[in-house]
Formats: sequence, structure tokens, C-alpha cells
Amino acid sequence: MTDLAPEAKERDAADELAALRARFVLDDTVYLDGNSLGALPAAVPDRVADVVRRQWGEQRIRSWEVGGWWTAPERIGDLLAPLVGAAPGQIVVGDSTSVNVFKAVVGAVRLAGDDRDEILVDASTFPTDGYIAESAARLTGRTLRAVTPSEVPAALSGRTAAVLLNHVDYRTGRLHDLPALTAAVHGAGAYAVWDLCHSAGALPVGLDEHGVDLAVGCTYKYLNGGPGSPAFLYVRHGLQDRFDSPLPGWTSHAEPFGMRPDYEAVSGARRGRVGTPDILSMLALEAALEVWDGVPVEAVRAKSLALTDFFLRCVAAYVPEGRVECVTPLDHAERGSQIGLRCAGAGEAMRRLIERGVVGDFRPPDVLRFGFTPLYVGFAEAERAARTLGEVLAEGGG
Amino acid sequence: MTDLAPEAKERDAADELAALRARFVLDDTVYLDGNSLGALPAAVPDRVADVVRRQWGEQRIRSWEVGGWWTAPERIGDLLAPLVGAAPGQIVVGDSTSVNVFKAVVGAVRLAGDDRDEILVDASTFPTDGYIAESAARLTGRTLRAVTPSEVPAALSGRTAAVLLNHVDYRTGRLHDLPALTAAVHGAGAYAVWDLCHSAGALPVGLDEHGVDLAVGCTYKYLNGGPGSPAFLYVRHGLQDRFDSPLPGWTSHAEPFGMRPDYEAVSGARRGRVGTPDILSMLALEAALEVWDGVPVEAVRAKSLALTDFFLRCVAAYVPEGRVECVTPLDHAERGSQIGLRCAGAGEAMRRLIERGVVGDFRPPDVLRFGFTPLYVGFAEAERAARTLGEVLAEGGG
Repeated sequence: MTDLAPEAKERDAADELAALRARFVLDDTVYLDGNSLGALPAAVPDRVADVVRRQWGEQRIRSWEVGGWWTAPERIGDLLAPLVGAAPGQIVVGDSTSVNVFKAVVGAVRLAGDDRDEILVDASTFPTDGYIAESAARLTGRTLRAVTPSEVPAALSGRTAAVLLNHVDYRTGRLHDLPALTAAVHGAGAYAVWDLCHSAGALPVGLDEHGVDLAVGCTYKYLNGGPGSPAFLYVRHGLQDRFDSPLPGWTSHAEPFGMRPDYEAVSGARRGRVGTPDILSMLALEAALEVWDGVPVEAVRAKSLALTDFFLRCVAAYVPEGRVECVTPLDHAERGSQIGLRCAGAGEAMRRLIERGVVGDFRPPDVLRFGFTPLYVGFAEAERAARTLGEVLAEGGG
Repeated sequence: MTDLAPEAKERDAADELAALRARFVLDDTVYLDGNSLGALPAAVPDRVADVVRRQWGEQRIRSWEVGGWWTAPERIGDLLAPLVGAAPGQIVVGDSTSVNVFKAVVGAVRLAGDDRDEILVDASTFPTDGYIAESAARLTGRTLRAVTPSEVPAALSGRTAAVLLNHVDYRTGRLHDLPALTAAVHGAGAYAVWDLCHSAGALPVGLDEHGVDLAVGCTYKYLNGGPGSPAFLYVRHGLQDRFDSPLPGWTSHAEPFGMRPDYEAVSGARRGRVGTPDILSMLALEAALEVWDGVPVEAVRAKSLALTDFFLRCVAAYVPEGRVECVTPLDHAERGSQIGLRCAGAGEAMRRLIERGVVGDFRPPDVLRFGFTPLYVGFAEAERAARTLGEVLAEGGG
């Protein structure tokens, strides 16, 4: 059997991002589930303690002003904007991804106008997108049609109001062609809404460059914001004046402390705000984003592809022939930052992997999913994960 | 001038709830803004540190199961249920109040059926309720009509689908008659939705007893959950099977990890869930609710009324004649747990009070607002607040 450990060691030694691992709290587990819950950034515990003890405990209500609580949604939105290729002033942080999908899809339908009565949704997407899009369709009197991303160009028509697509498929790790699909949607006069849950922080997104209309994403995967940390909503500059939120809560009012009976939307990205910002989780996210200081997302992407390529070589070297089948595209242009392996008995195999300190996850019915977070995963870990998988499957596990 | 300090001292000595103050982190400030942001419960910092360092940092993804993360929304809902007079299984915690108002109003309209085309909303309410109700009306094709609570009985008709009311007015502190108004709404065949932001944790609500249909509330005022902590949604048992949420996110699915393309709502209160629960803020709230161990809300209510009565006596004794006018009803049956004083130059007067260690807040155009949180506010503090207000106004402040 080829031993790839020496090569892993060399590559880790040459890795310019290797030192970033120290910005996280980690142990000797091989943690390949950062695409579900990112590891804890080292700066977070002290920051959260300060928010709780000093800002809340001592300054109390004054922190809404002096602690920067009130402006947190747009400030943190600007902090993550470069990671998804957005200029400042287009992202607010808050609410869950599902709630932001609702704002974005209803907003897009309203932008498209009453003549367009159909919403297209990626049928292979994480299900919440479909459920929420269905609700948005029902409430706005539109029809929802589920298609695969490759079917989108042919499905577009003068009826299409909005198209909701997932940038990276949560199960297979397939990366969809955001520039081409966005251009196709625009060619039909419709609005493109992208769900970036599995791409934000993993690869360059280029929201501004490709003219994406609206986008949403979570912050607890590759952005390491913590369990259930607030999601984000992007509304591009050119649409903000016409963005008409279905959740016009008081914090999106032009004069929120005027307590006026009539709603008047604030200008800019803040229009995507709803209720009182969830400060503990939001400021934990702000501290978590410090791990990106000086780290270009392009470098992260390059390492991600190198890691997943190397992991697949290790799997080929260590795993008995025919026991797993890669469901993630081999073409770099179609690969996110995870590898999905179809495997008989995948649930049991993942349990054994976890027992041996290799943490990925199992997605029914038969997929082993391994997420590669280049900020804290190295080549030696990719090698160990594949080696352990090989051992587990050779022993008949799975 | 009558000196009420000795009486305050006596009453504090006789106060059975006085020892509860030790369950909070407080200093010598007179903090009368707990109706905006509750003080920090002493158990919260260590709990949050444990959630961050151990549950997230060490257990990582496993905490969704072993850390009780997944079931937190309904577990914490059950924990606060007794405070609002609800049996278990009817409350979930999550999202902001505004988002929950949206779920509740759209849900109520759908329960009422297509024949009923009007929503009534309390015109004096906190504005977000009106903004969100307007959006719910627009999306469901209903008409929104703003009325005062006293106008509700006359405004009800066979057209009325739902009525959204605020239990306690955020500005005046007026407590509305929840039992009578709910009965009137039901008499017209409509559904009653109550906003409990200013009553949950301040006084007995009796949701089950009075047959309230749906209710929402925040947890960062009298429930001390922390800045922007998750709100809650109550759907009474008898309606849960027909509750049809406009935000059917994946965590409200009957089989959330099945990742099925079609939505099927889970049974029970969990139907009010939407996206991934915001764990840091949610578990901080869970720790915060421990301050209620062994504390009946009826005792809190009795002390609240005694405190506000005493504060008004102190104001009468210390504040120069004619400088303030109480906008909060004197009748106990109509009083929440705050006192609003109309005062020329209220903004400046509040700034001076805060400089002298008495923290209330200013609500435009001319109201000084003082919240009384009986768990940690005593009679000596009420006396000191009124005395300081008298000094500020006597000096010409305001």
C-alpha cells in the first residue's frame, strides 16, 4: 500500500495557511464536520464573556449605544462582505437562514412585479429552501416549480419571477455555476436568489462581480460563528430602494425610535433587519470573523481543492476497491469544500470513524460526508481520515 | 417634606422576595430599566462559558444531541410556560418577537378561514406589531384596521379573523383586560393573539385559563434573557393541529433529518419552530430562567403593585407640584409593572437621573419611564429614584 503520510507532512510544512490552526480551539480529533458546525475560534470565549459580564452585566441598557449593539447587524455584515465578494452596505446579519430565504424570495417576487407568476427552486437543495419558497409562493399567489440547476436555463420564461438556487449542494458537495446561472436568470428578466450556506467562507462567491440580486447564508459552517449563529441577507445596492420586505419589523424603520404608527423603510441593507438583534450570538460571530484577518478567500479555495484532491488520492490508496463511490464532482469547477462518499452501511461506518477520532457526518441514506475547512484542517488530517476509513471498511464496518 | 426612607427600609426588611436580588449581578445603580433589558442573572456567565468552551469548543457537533441543543426551543418553552399560565407543550422559544408576531397573525388568519377578511390591531401598541400585522394582512389578502383596545368589542364582526393586542402598553404601562377582550374576540368567532412583551414575568397572564389562542413575547425584559434573547410563541393545544405556519422551516418538519423534499409539519408546539436554533442566546436564557425557581409569579405581582404604589407616593412627596403627571393607571387592574411620568423636558431629566445613578428611560415625546422588576428592585430603590427625580426637577432640570 502506498504510504501518503510522508507527502502529507511535506505539504503541511509548505502550507502558508497552516499557522491559522492556532486561531482555533482544537484537539487531536480530525474534525471534518466544519461544514455543519465550524470549530471554536480562540477569540470567542473571552469576547463572549466580556459581552455577558461587562456589556450586559455592568453597562446594561447603555450598551445598545456604547457597546455597538444597535449597529451590529450591518457592521458584522460589512465584516463578512469581502468573503462573499460584496462591497460594504449590502449585507445585514440576523435571523435564521430560513427566515432570510423568506425575505429574499418574497422580496425578489415583488421586484419582478405582478406579471411574473412563477418561482423556480432548486429541487436538489437543502429542503428548508423548498419549504420556505413554497410558503412564499403561496403567500404571494405565485406557482412554485422545482427543477434541478441544470434544468434552470430551459425552465426560464417570461413567467419567471425569481429563481432560488443553492451554490453548493449540501449532500454531494457539487458547486453550481453561479455566474452562468445568474446570467441566464437575468437574461429571462428574472431575479436570482442564492443560498450560500455551503460556500460562504469556503470559496470565492463574487456576489457583486456576477450581479447576484439577493443572497442568504448561514454563519455557523465555514464562518465558524457558533451553533445557530445569525444568518445573513445580501441585497445588492441597485435593488435596495425597491426591496420590499415581508418582515418589516421596527428595527428596519427609517426612524426606529420614533415609534411611529406608520411604517417607513430605512434605506440600504438595513431594510433587511426585522426585530431586536440577538446580541450574544451576533457578537460571538463578530469575534469569530477575526480569524479571517489577512486571509484571502482565494488562498482558502486553493488549499481546499488541494486538500480534497489529496483526500481522494488517500481514499483510493487506503480504502478497499469498490467500497466507496465519490458523489462529489472531480472537476474543480464543480466541487465545493466537502467530499461525499457513497458507501453501503454508511451510518455504521461513520459511527466507527467517530469512535476513532475522525468526525464527519452521515447523510441518509448512504453518504459519508467530510467537510474540509482549510483554516484548520491540514493534509496529515486528510491522510489520517482516509487511512482510518480504510481500516474501518477493511474490518467489515459498514 | 415627608421622609419615606424609613418606611422603605421597613418594607424591604419585610419583603419575602428581597433575597432574590442576590440571584443577579447588580451594583449600587437604581436600575429601573428592566422593562427594556433585564439585569444579568448570576448563573448566566458560567453557563454561557460552558456552552462556548465545552459544548461548542470540545464536543462540537455532538452537542446537538448530547448537549440538548436540538430540543432547546421546546424545553425552554416549557420552562417559561408556568410564568404565563401555560401547561407544557404549547410554547417554543426562538426568533424575534416580530417574526413570531408574523407567524401568529398569519396562523390566526388561516385558522379563521377565508370568510373572514379583517384583522384588528391595537393602534396604541408597540409599532412593530402594527407593521408586521400590516404585512400579514397584505400577504393573506386581508384588511388591517387599527383600533384602541377599548374599541375592540364594538369593532368585532363576522368579518373579523384575528385581533392582535398588547397586554401592557409599552409607553403608559396600562394593563389591558386580557380575559374580557379574549372572551369578546371569541364571542365574535375570531382568534385572539396577545403580545406579552411587557407582561411575561411581570404579572400572571393566565393564557390557558382565559383561552388565549396564540401569544408571543420577548424574553429580555422581565425574563432577563439578555440583549435580543430569543422570543417565544404560544399556540394553545386545541389549535396546534390546524396551526399553519407561514415560516415552515426545516426544524418544524415531522422528520427534520429525513431531508425530504415535501414539507410535513411536526405535531405540537414544535410546529412554531423555523430554522436552526440560536444556541448561545437560547441557553443563556435557560440559565436566566433559573432565577424563578420557587418564585410564584403571583408574589412578584403583589410586590410589583406595592412597589409602584410606593414609588408614586414618593413622587408625590418629593417632586415639586405640577412637574410630572402619571400616565399609568392608578387602578391596580389596569397597571403593568412600570410607571410612566409625563414631564416637560423629559429627555434632559432622564439624562440627569442616569448621571446620578437612577436608570430609567425616555420615550418620546415627553415620558419618563420607570420599570419595576420585583425580583431585584426594592423599596429603598424606589424611594431613591423618586428623591433623585425630585432633586433633578427642583434644580430646573427638564
